[in-house]
Amino acid sequence: MSDGPLNNDIFDKNILSDGERIDDLQIHNCYIIQNPEKFCFGMDAVLLSGFAKIKKGETVLDMGTGTGILPILLAAKTEGRSFTGLELQAESADMARRSVKLNNMEDRIDIVTGDIKQASDIFGAASYDVVVTNPPYMNENHGIVNPHAPKAIARHEIMCSLEDVVGQAARVLKVNGRLYMVHRPFRLVDIMELMVQYRLEPKRLRMVYPYIGKEPSMVLVEGVKGGRRRLSVEKPLIIYNDDREYTDEMKRDYAF
Amino acid sequence: MSDGPLNNDIFDKNILSDGERIDDLQIHNCYIIQNPEKFCFGMDAVLLSGFAKIKKGETVLDMGTGTGILPILLAAKTEGRSFTGLELQAESADMARRSVKLNNMEDRIDIVTGDIKQASDIFGAASYDVVVTNPPYMNENHGIVNPHAPKAIARHEIMCSLEDVVGQAARVLKVNGRLYMVHRPFRLVDIMELMVQYRLEPKRLRMVYPYIGKEPSMVLVEGVKGGRRRLSVEKPLIIYNDDREYTDEMKRDYAF
Repeated sequence: MSDGPLNNDIFDKNILSDGERIDDLQIHNCYIIQNPEKFCFGMDAVLLSGFAKIKKGETVLDMGTGTGILPILLAAKTEGRSFTGLELQAESADMARRSVKLNNMEDRIDIVTGDIKQASDIFGAASYDVVVTNPPYMNENHGIVNPHAPKAIARHEIMCSLEDVVGQAARVLKVNGRLYMVHRPFRLVDIMELMVQYRLEPKRLRMVYPYIGKEPSMVLVEGVKGGRRRLSVEKPLIIYNDDREYTDEMKRDYAF
Repeated sequence: MSDGPLNNDIFDKNILSDGERIDDLQIHNCYIIQNPEKFCFGMDAVLLSGFAKIKKGETVLDMGTGTGILPILLAAKTEGRSFTGLELQAESADMARRSVKLNNMEDRIDIVTGDIKQASDIFGAASYDVVVTNPPYMNENHGIVNPHAPKAIARHEIMCSLEDVVGQAARVLKVNGRLYMVHRPFRLVDIMELMVQYRLEPKRLRMVYPYIGKEPSMVLVEGVKGGRRRLSVEKPLIIYNDDREYTDEMKRDYAF
């Protein structure tokens, strides 16, 4: 993640709308346009981009791409052939398209404005090798002041449920296709129940702990469409060491 | 766990059969009779005895008690009123009964020879506050030379499946009663699927890592009969530090 805005003067200012800035992703000279008053990508997207294994030539759909962080990071990090970012919110999708252009990735990344709940209608069944998703985490939607706010829609299951995400992922994936998801540990029972129900067998799971002695803040899961039952739980991913610095693995594999 | 056999001369030798020895549990002067050629308890039972929360006056059933390690440790560590150890193998059950007597715990621990699959017939429905279990882990039973050997029966799902264990636990527990189980992480999908199916909602989960940088070797799970959906994943339990010594938590909470 970027520590803050660049000197945006080096870019053509016409690419930015009011309140927006360009952040350096610090990998392969990639950048992203964000509006800090609306929604900025977080650690979860970066971790998912490291957990997902995209092979050369594969096609990838990001369900709920927001400002396009996952397609951009994955296009930079992997040899995947094409990346589609599906985003419901027109303003976020527009920012994502401008970021794709800014990175000269138009030949590999396509941003589509549309609803996760209609993903299989839009793209067709069994059309992708891989689905990645960083969906809304929260299923308790009480106390939301503005359910139309971009942040609320990105974080709460207002516009789509976990079942919508898993069910649509199962439909758009080819047989043996993989789903990579980052989510909150408190939803793990829902995640496993729905993945089993939609025959996206959980095959890899990794707990992400902010520090060694703390509860996990995230869980990374890989599911395989029609996969055989046997889960591999991986070594813990620890984000910070005792000195509050990124751990060696975070520096090495996640470009921090 | 004991580092090895005591000088068994301090005990009445009539309590031991051929090949058996008495091991010091190093907690509250408790001992256990084991036959190292057949089956000795492991780290998993000790960890489960620390993970399980038994309140004063509660009744506890250990499904598949083996030589009685869990009832003995829990009777020593908690104020639970009564502990029942259910064991299919007559020889193990007999050793467990002699260990209970050796520890003068006959008033709190009862060892019953019987089949997990008939637990609710033996004890009745809704009859316990808590069930603990350290069931056979392995569901791939190929290559077993002697399926009648005590070790094979304790480790492989020869005589009972995970579904038998979870289903019977659900039946013998009272409403809001708790199941505490230790198992292998590769079975986590089965565990969650079956617990949800039998309405033993997973509420607490803790991964046990032998070292910080290694895959987890065990998973500890608490389920609540009829509980509301929301899982709490706890901080990691690390067994050894980098110097191959027990971590502070292991020394403090598990009496190593």
